[in-house]
Amino acid sequence: MTATLTAGASRETRDVGQAMHALIADLYPFCRSITGDGVRATLLRLGVLNPLTLHEVRSGTQVLDWIVPPEWNVRDAYIKNSRGERIVDFRASNLHVLNYSVPVHRTVSLAELRRHCFTLPDHPDWTPYRTSYYNEAWGFCLPHRLLESLPEGEYEVRIDATLAPGYLTYGEVVIPGASADEVLFSCHICHPSLANDNLSAVAVATFLARHLRHERRPTHHTYRFLFIPGTIGSITWLARNAELVPRIKHGLVLAGLGDSGCLHYKRSRRDTATIDRAVAQVLRERGAPYEVLPFAPYGYDERQYCSPGYDLPVGCLSRTPYARYPEYHTSADDLSFVRPDALADSYATLALICDVLDGDARYRNASPYGEPQLGRRGLYEPIGGATQTRLNEMALLWVLNLSDGHHSLLDIAERAGLPFADVRHSANALLAHRLLLPTTPQEEL
Amino acid sequence: MTATLTAGASRETRDVGQAMHALIADLYPFCRSITGDGVRATLLRLGVLNPLTLHEVRSGTQVLDWIVPPEWNVRDAYIKNSRGERIVDFRASNLHVLNYSVPVHRTVSLAELRRHCFTLPDHPDWTPYRTSYYNEAWGFCLPHRLLESLPEGEYEVRIDATLAPGYLTYGEVVIPGASADEVLFSCHICHPSLANDNLSAVAVATFLARHLRHERRPTHHTYRFLFIPGTIGSITWLARNAELVPRIKHGLVLAGLGDSGCLHYKRSRRDTATIDRAVAQVLRERGAPYEVLPFAPYGYDERQYCSPGYDLPVGCLSRTPYARYPEYHTSADDLSFVRPDALADSYATLALICDVLDGDARYRNASPYGEPQLGRRGLYEPIGGATQTRLNEMALLWVLNLSDGHHSLLDIAERAGLPFADVRHSANALLAHRLLLPTTPQEEL
Amino acid sequence: MTATLTAGASRETRDVGQAMHALIADLYPFCRSITGDGVRATLLRLGVLNPLTLHEVRSGTQVLDWIVPPEWNVRDAYIKNSRGERIVDFRASNLHVLNYSVPVHRTVSLAELRRHCFTLPDHPDWTPYRTSYYNEAWGFCLPHRLLESLPEGEYEVRIDATLAPGYLTYGEVVIPGASADEVLFSCHICHPSLANDNLSAVAVATFLARHLRHERRPTHHTYRFLFIPGTIGSITWLARNAELVPRIKHGLVLAGLGDSGCLHYKRSRRDTATIDRAVAQVLRERGAPYEVLPFAPYGYDERQYCSPGYDLPVGCLSRTPYARYPEYHTSADDLSFVRPDALADSYATLALICDVLDGDARYRNASPYGEPQLGRRGLYEPIGGATQTRLNEMALLWVLNLSDGHHSLLDIAERAGLPFADVRHSANALLAHRLLLPTTPQEEL
Repeated sequence: MTATLTAGASRETRDVGQAMHALIADLYPFCRSITGDGVRATLLRLGVLNPLTLHEVRSGTQVLDWIVPPEWNVRDAYIKNSRGERIVDFRASNLHVLNYSVPVHRTVSLAELRRHCFTLPDHPDWTPYRTSYYNEAWGFCLPHRLLESLPEGEYEVRIDATLAPGYLTYGEVVIPGASADEVLFSCHICHPSLANDNLSAVAVATFLARHLRHERRPTHHTYRFLFIPGTIGSITWLARNAELVPRIKHGLVLAGLGDSGCLHYKRSRRDTATIDRAVAQVLRERGAPYEVLPFAPYGYDERQYCSPGYDLPVGCLSRTPYARYPEYHTSADDLSFVRPDALADSYATLALICDVLDGDARYRNASPYGEPQLGRRGLYEPIGGATQTRLNEMALLWVLNLSDGHHSLLDIAERAGLPFADVRHSANALLAHRLLLPTTPQEEL
Repeated sequence: MTATLTAGASRETRDVGQAMHALIADLYPFCRSITGDGVRATLLRLGVLNPLTLHEVRSGTQVLDWIVPPEWNVRDAYIKNSRGERIVDFRASNLHVLNYSVPVHRTVSLAELRRHCFTLPDHPDWTPYRTSYYNEAWGFCLPHRLLESLPEGEYEVRIDATLAPGYLTYGEVVIPGASADEVLFSCHICHPSLANDNLSAVAVATFLARHLRHERRPTHHTYRFLFIPGTIGSITWLARNAELVPRIKHGLVLAGLGDSGCLHYKRSRRDTATIDRAVAQVLRERGAPYEVLPFAPYGYDERQYCSPGYDLPVGCLSRTPYARYPEYHTSADDLSFVRPDALADSYATLALICDVLDGDARYRNASPYGEPQLGRRGLYEPIGGATQTRLNEMALLWVLNLSDGHHSLLDIAERAGLPFADVRHSANALLAHRLLLPTTPQEEL
Repeated sequence: MTATLTAGASRETRDVGQAMHALIADLYPFCRSITGDGVRATLLRLGVLNPLTLHEVRSGTQVLDWIVPPEWNVRDAYIKNSRGERIVDFRASNLHVLNYSVPVHRTVSLAELRRHCFTLPDHPDWTPYRTSYYNEAWGFCLPHRLLESLPEGEYEVRIDATLAPGYLTYGEVVIPGASADEVLFSCHICHPSLANDNLSAVAVATFLARHLRHERRPTHHTYRFLFIPGTIGSITWLARNAELVPRIKHGLVLAGLGDSGCLHYKRSRRDTATIDRAVAQVLRERGAPYEVLPFAPYGYDERQYCSPGYDLPVGCLSRTPYARYPEYHTSADDLSFVRPDALADSYATLALICDVLDGDARYRNASPYGEPQLGRRGLYEPIGGATQTRLNEMALLWVLNLSDGHHSLLDIAERAGLPFADVRHSANALLAHRLLLPTTPQEEL
């Protein structure tokens, strides 16, 4: 695992890794779904860490092509054997209930029970996570070994749930910036006791928002964090925020950011949007292994943000992509599966991505005919050791050479193969010496 | 060989393979050239299988930069030794006469005879195929071993041929479609007893035309099949059909489709025309080995169709490309060299290419904001087993995501890496649910 | 080394290799710098071989963002030990004086002396080359072994130099062509006794100019050769020739053309300018190993020509790039380090590059519908042996096929994978037969 992280993470970053893991542990027991009290409880907890606006949208509301479903809540659920013993117990794990089960209270034969049970024969000790949001059904999820051990006989099944008019709940944290242009971070909060999918991203997003609020103010962009149920949540947000959509200049769906795999970035439908290039730049700079994947209209809420009517520049950042690890959507995606160092690495990477998005700009070389004489201005001197010197000198020369009103600093970092921070730092030095000028409004990013 | 064909060819396709081989056997003995009775006899035989229009263009007619040559016919030809025995006999193989030889009847020494003989020292038992269309000459083609065995002495050489004003003959099969836009298939019919070059393509084209007429009517495009002598035939057709040329939207020159090599596609001069992409898509989908070659102004009649004044989107489909197999232009390119399974594979591939050309279209997602709720419309249910389900679901999502008025179904299949048939099938399902709309005329393909 | 040169260099080319090496030997002893009598003496020697205009620009003149510095000349310099012996002597090698040293005449302790001495500990017998153009300083360069051997004691240091108002000197050779469009060759002449950097390029440029004047007149382009001090020289030329700059259509900075490494071409800032493609084409054709490097705003005077205000199509041709060989900027870059065969190969390559730049043109096929009948015009006959025939026939067909007013002969050579000379030769034959037409002014290159 260590090999996939950037070396020399700072102590602060390591502390944030521990804090994120602790937040995941807090949220882990709640019974979340696409609606219901588990979501509300989760958002209230997140509201302690950032100023969070909680939105409630009534069941039955038309949102784009969809309708907000009834709200689902579970008080209790179990399977009892003929001796009245709870052999499957919701109180032990909320994964045991098929998510969005209709209520049931019956006595059934083993044969009928089996038709309502979901197991993983290949992982007989794990409980799977299954849902039935839009088909009325009841069911239990349990270890295969347990199901196989059940004797013939009668079983009492009870799911004390309500599926009734109520609300869809989501949360929003907005960090105003100098510009009304927005960066969107979106993560799904609809999964019950699963740590990596997606409490990991919920925790990373929460601490990234704190970082932007505390250490980076004021930012250039306005940053918007959405904590929403998957699919229906992004559809609801898009339906209710038509006027905000055009402001989204960059965005990322965050999911599965705590496992020990290397980072994977799935590009937006646009393929070469600034977000696609900014993430690739940061991943290259980090030096750790990573993969960039093409867009596909499958996955998480990028499906909605990248639908052709919106076509937003929104990609998706994960560590191991969904369904590519055996623990995915099982009880094995637990608190031990997510690691503080992986969370910290995801967090640090996202902070660098924000640096690029916020620091990118386009300038004009004020002395574009030949090179300006840098030595006369002391632009070689403030520079330290030999290697570092060359690096910064190269960044100065690249910024001067490509600052023609067309190339942005990100373009320059890409073409020069230099870290974005070096390019930004050089641009600052040149701006201070009036060797760079702001671009005209037409030339702006 | 089997390895280069797609597995599981249907019985119908295998039957067509046998029928094509039988047609080649029928046509094999005729003495064809760029003009003459052998071409007429060939076209009459093809006219039994499809409604074929036979065109005759008088010798001396100016066609583009060329002039239709005199018509050539041979009644008999031989070399007799001093005992009056036919040691080389046109009745045994029409390859023995230099194609387009002027008539001759003389007695010559062995030394003079040798100056008029063509052999293949590297394949001493094979007879080469040689032509002299535009230079007056006479000559014989024979096995090198035979020539080497001839004793000194006098030889009677006779070529009882006529080279006189007459006609250039070619055939045309047109299958009208819903649209006046045309797909052109062109194959040369000027070679005498050579099976792969090019009776193979003549047979495949003939049966492809039958397939389109019987099993596929009505087609979207109008399909035009040309059975023409090489070079002078395509030049003649182009010269006489200036008003038709702009209707050709896609085209293929067909040649050498019966040998056991893998399929080779040579792109049109345009390099990325729809025909280039459609053929590449089908070759990828088939799963068998294949090669795609760049355009070059050498080869078959694509040289004329792709001349800069026309620049038609016409590529060339072959199995082993010309001159890359030793049997090329020799008596070894005989009936045993072409195989029913290879012919059937070429035929099936061309049928799939027609599926793509005819089935390609551009649509607009009628519900482009977010994904439409497919489950509500039963668009997940009619789908069978697990793997197939995912595949079709992916095709549905890709078609919805990219149907923005810009991407065609072929574009979608390419970007998604999905079989075109799956994409077309998904589009049909979405059209039935009014989730896709036709594009405006400006957006049409 | 031989492996990196094209086989079969002609005797003439080999003789030129010897002549270039002899010129380098002549120029080697002069004490050059960015100004001064060594530069003047060098240019006077070059003026014997080509009509050279010598320019002098007064110290203190503003040139772009820079100011022409005072002129530097050295009469003598030494370090004497306590016995009055010259232990470091300018008369033995001009590298011993820190280039642009201020005058000094003092007696110093060993400790102080060491602070003014530059050595190469990794190459203890070599003397480094160091400069201090824009920081006032004095110093000596010497072998590390010598410095280490010096006993404690007092040393007399003397640099009998002048650093005073004078001139910056550069030379220009212009070869007028049919067109006012220019090809620029620029090489730096500011280094003292270093053979590869850059007397090699000075010699190659000199003999290339002779070749163009004597064997190639009249050329299409006007050719301009600049013999200038690095950085300040190109800046001075650009500042004084604003009206000429737009005429520069292609250009190369020449540097380090005599070592035994393979050729390296660094592309212009434009990346795909005609010069970039022409050099790549010639390097491919030669068959010897080579490397093409991306543009970077570091290196030689391409930094100035490619500054964003000019953005000229100027690349840089070297053998081993600067600083990638240990002899770089040391006394080991001497007459034995540069080789006649390497110089000859650089020269021959540049002559071919001029062939491409001068021979490139765009034509229109006069018979664009179908192929013209080449046989009728004897365009197959004048062609010799079998292999060569095919090659030239291919070139004829490619030129006809792509001469549509859009493709230049260089485009055609690139797409066809043919030598440019074959393409140019075919175009000449087709022009003679009126099968090619000149393009309209709008279509011209």
